[in-house]
Amino acid sequence: MRIALGLAYDGTGSAGWQTQSGGHALQDQLEASLTQLAGHAVATVCAGRTDAGVHALAQVVHFDTSAQRPLTAWVRGANARLSDRLRVQWAQPVNDQFHARFSARSRSYRYLLHVAPVMNPMWAGRAGWVFRPLDLAAMQSASLSLLGEHDFSAFRSSQCQARSPVRNISRLEVRARGEFVEFMVTANAFLHHMVRNLVGTLVQVGLGRKPPEWVGQVLAARDRSLAAATFSPAGLYLVGVDYGPQAGLPSTGPFDPLTLDN
Amino acid sequence: MRIALGLAYDGTGSAGWQTQSGGHALQDQLEASLTQLAGHAVATVCAGRTDAGVHALAQVVHFDTSAQRPLTAWVRGANARLSDRLRVQWAQPVNDQFHARFSARSRSYRYLLHVAPVMNPMWAGRAGWVFRPLDLAAMQSASLSLLGEHDFSAFRSSQCQARSPVRNISRLEVRARGEFVEFMVTANAFLHHMVRNLVGTLVQVGLGRKPPEWVGQVLAARDRSLAAATFSPAGLYLVGVDYGPQAGLPSTGPFDPLTLDN
Repeated sequence: MRIALGLAYDGTGSAGWQTQSGGHALQDQLEASLTQLAGHAVATVCAGRTDAGVHALAQVVHFDTSAQRPLTAWVRGANARLSDRLRVQWAQPVNDQFHARFSARSRSYRYLLHVAPVMNPMWAGRAGWVFRPLDLAAMQSASLSLLGEHDFSAFRSSQCQARSPVRNISRLEVRARGEFVEFMVTANAFLHHMVRNLVGTLVQVGLGRKPPEWVGQVLAARDRSLAAATFSPAGLYLVGVDYGPQAGLPSTGPFDPLTLDN
Repeated sequence: MRIALGLAYDGTGSAGWQTQSGGHALQDQLEASLTQLAGHAVATVCAGRTDAGVHALAQVVHFDTSAQRPLTAWVRGANARLSDRLRVQWAQPVNDQFHARFSARSRSYRYLLHVAPVMNPMWAGRAGWVFRPLDLAAMQSASLSLLGEHDFSAFRSSQCQARSPVRNISRLEVRARGEFVEFMVTANAFLHHMVRNLVGTLVQVGLGRKPPEWVGQVLAARDRSLAAATFSPAGLYLVGVDYGPQAGLPSTGPFDPLTLDN
């Protein structure tokens, strides 16, 4: 049978999601735990392969197993074998057509940016940081040019393995929350480093180094060298994956890294 | 001249505030940084010696120096030499009568308790955790007996070095905030482990293992063995130290660990 799991993790100091030869990736930790529990080798497929240092409040994975276990055992049993920085939040049987990656209709990420003269150390590893004030209206204006379906080659890492650079951003909001600026972005899927490159580019506008219309020009030029440097992974959170109501999965967001009190 | 500093730190994995022979305590890190900056050995005195794993959003220290530096240098220069888990937030000259420990009229701590079937891994190290629901009204009722001046021997660690076990709690609030229960406590000063012992005891009431009136009985008996075990340091935050307006220090709270967006 096929089982879907909801996961949350603090990616600070982690090697990222995807399995590595050293076995230190989050996927390696989870698969080792599930393999022990199932009594056979378990392989997982995830909705979004987060990079080193990136967090998830609502990652989704699936795996196949012949083991008969109550659903609570997949949650409690796995968690008993995991670091407290990685937690299975729920387990749900799904049909064999469900695929954590290919069945996802959209992913949502939040980026938290701490704007303060001195970084609050409680947010080290969990928020980006700029010490100069940002022009929120300029960033909001610039963000409009990114909405919709575009070739996002300008915001794509050179290591990106996706076949097409075309993605569709259905939501991109920039708002101030106390000492933070939060970016909320939803797309059908994301290219490698896409959110961090978008944030880095919008921050250049927020700092007044570039005008808002520059962002649309960078997008149209499809040239990675024109956009800003990739922003820190510290503020990035995978906060939701949408499979549509027919998948019958527990709600996975949108979660709020600032309060985390959903 | 005497200088006061406002500090914030993430105590997760740290050895605590007070200097240690290995030199790994937060005080050791800060003094090494200030010593480099001043060009002479610097010793600091703090308002509240937090234990290993305890956080501070508004710690205050003072030190004496013969070095002439602009105030911003004490902030930026120190931070450039510190881990990103420890930050000097502000520096302010004070008169020679000011003493970070003895001039403080009160200290405020918050304790954050995550109440959820599965711990949110983003709060690992930064909140306590219980997986059973808590009876908030019972804890609030029990907390009333702790207000005011009492002999708090029942809530004092055997390693406590204070001369007197008498302390005065001027504020003790227990409230629900989403998936969290928050304890806010202000006293003239605290005994060693006092907040964590109070929280552990109130949680026993919240779990229904003891009736609310038990807390007053434990207090009156002045016997540490009657109270609950010391609760985890993970949820404890020093959030404010009050020196009165005449000290002229920047406001130091009350800060909010749940949002951290003051």
